[in-house]
Amino acid sequence: MKQVLVKKPQDIQIVEAEKIDRPQGNEVKVKVIYAGLCGSDVHIFEGHNPFATYPRIIGHEVMGVVEEVGEDVSDLESGDQVILEPIKTCGECRSCRIGRPNICENLQVYGVHRDGGMREYFVIESDKLHKISSEVTPEKAVLAEPLTIGAQASLRGEVGEGDTVLIQGAGTIGLCCLLIAKHRGAKVIVSDLDNDKLQFAKDKGADYTINIGENNLLDEVFKITEDKGVNVSMDAVGLNATFESAVKSCAPAGKVVVLGFEEKPAQVSQVDITKGELDIKGSRLQTDQFPYIISLLEKNLIDVDGIVTHIKDKEEINDALELFKDNSSRKILIKF
Amino acid sequence: MKQVLVKKPQDIQIVEAEKIDRPQGNEVKVKVIYAGLCGSDVHIFEGHNPFATYPRIIGHEVMGVVEEVGEDVSDLESGDQVILEPIKTCGECRSCRIGRPNICENLQVYGVHRDGGMREYFVIESDKLHKISSEVTPEKAVLAEPLTIGAQASLRGEVGEGDTVLIQGAGTIGLCCLLIAKHRGAKVIVSDLDNDKLQFAKDKGADYTINIGENNLLDEVFKITEDKGVNVSMDAVGLNATFESAVKSCAPAGKVVVLGFEEKPAQVSQVDITKGELDIKGSRLQTDQFPYIISLLEKNLIDVDGIVTHIKDKEEINDALELFKDNSSRKILIKF
Repeated sequence: MKQVLVKKPQDIQIVEAEKIDRPQGNEVKVKVIYAGLCGSDVHIFEGHNPFATYPRIIGHEVMGVVEEVGEDVSDLESGDQVILEPIKTCGECRSCRIGRPNICENLQVYGVHRDGGMREYFVIESDKLHKISSEVTPEKAVLAEPLTIGAQASLRGEVGEGDTVLIQGAGTIGLCCLLIAKHRGAKVIVSDLDNDKLQFAKDKGADYTINIGENNLLDEVFKITEDKGVNVSMDAVGLNATFESAVKSCAPAGKVVVLGFEEKPAQVSQVDITKGELDIKGSRLQTDQFPYIISLLEKNLIDVDGIVTHIKDKEEINDALELFKDNSSRKILIKF
Repeated sequence: MKQVLVKKPQDIQIVEAEKIDRPQGNEVKVKVIYAGLCGSDVHIFEGHNPFATYPRIIGHEVMGVVEEVGEDVSDLESGDQVILEPIKTCGECRSCRIGRPNICENLQVYGVHRDGGMREYFVIESDKLHKISSEVTPEKAVLAEPLTIGAQASLRGEVGEGDTVLIQGAGTIGLCCLLIAKHRGAKVIVSDLDNDKLQFAKDKGADYTINIGENNLLDEVFKITEDKGVNVSMDAVGLNATFESAVKSCAPAGKVVVLGFEEKPAQVSQVDITKGELDIKGSRLQTDQFPYIISLLEKNLIDVDGIVTHIKDKEEINDALELFKDNSSRKILIKF
């Protein structure tokens, strides 16, 4: 069985592993079809992910088909199409007890803190798998995980009808934020440096786009919103400059949704928070968003066509990493 | 009729004004008994309040007695003890429509944007007055306004039973935050540089106090909370250093309540917000907190004894301003 292993930073290999055990009890054996390549996989490869330990089998955007189930599993059967729930939580800490397991004190993310899904097969407890109808193509089903990140951003930003939302960044996460914010009824402005990405965002429902290489972001935002600012400002870039702009872009009672992990401090003035009673809210991973996203995909309520731009075989992982860096791709899938 | 007028920054005078008109329609004439001296009054005097215009009759912490009512006023009568609602809002902007009039786009605060209550009499619409039982002494009733600021901080921080709250600053606002957070059932840590202030906070219910001149704030907070951090961190100081510490002091899912108006940017790292999905929330003035505070005062459910340390006659306003600056006072009242 082949697996994609980051042995140490800058050292990624396709490794032949021992044959995998048969599932026991509540375990399920999954034959992986696709794993999406995400920025955090790339950061683990580069050695910039603060949470990763090595060696590590990467991959947390994972879908496949059930190959075999343990004797106690009743909700899944061989042949079911499934998506990995990539978060393992303790269930006992305060965060878990208040319904925020995504910030569990003992959080483990598959592919980051423990081995992930970039391998031909894995065995896992059945409650870490979400079933999705086989009417959803594998190429769409594998997008469920990044879509949950967009859903969490809308949840944290309490996006709803009547809101105007700014999303900085038209990469995969920005697009996922866009699709969910539009589904929730908001008017959405997307900004980026790349006109092709902005055109794609427009095709996916963005009401306005701003090329920040050509125009001043805040000038344009205040023009579009008739000097009011936006109700929700999501930063899907994560630079300090974008975070700082997000704070400045808000109307009174606005919500800034922070998805980035930059450690170097940004410059934020208290008056900008207090004057309009803003909420600046972190959004990390997701809590319980898979059922919602799976339902949207199964009912065809969000249009994810075209988000996947490249499919690479597992043996081409190095090509995929190169392709990721050159910024012309949207979602790259690794095929197993 | 005498009034306390800041003619321009650094120029405060007791001015003899024309006789005031009789109240018409829904207006009420109030004979002022006390106005509390607040940091923002001092900032207007010093020229540091970004919202004030001059000349300005200061005073937004105001209580007195109804002298006469207009012909359409039915809910107040001569002799009623009343407190000024210091916020005037448009009722039409989005903030007003979503129940957040304290951040009204056309907000006017009496004593800041328009003339306040540091005068012997004023005439005002009856809906800008809150009646409070005369069983509450004037010296306690006048504390209602700063107590609403503490109530708003708890509202924004969603303080409840089981929470551990850090309050930086044991001045009047810090004490008001403390009284409300304790009333709501939280465990409260108060920090300050002054041991006398900390002792007073302890007398008023603080469970722990930290002298930040003698100990490292964050070390102590994490010791007290067994390495977890606090659920709500209120900054009643408003320096960038205290704001930055507030962010660092939180447990996962923690809420930072920002009350300051510092314009110089603070240093805030995105990772500190995202990792624990913090909420950083501005708290400005208050919305609908007077009925709550008046009920607490009337039912004797919060102990405000000793918060007022000095009562100065209106003619002594310059002494009062000096006294405010020397930091040994808590609340100074101006008597009319």
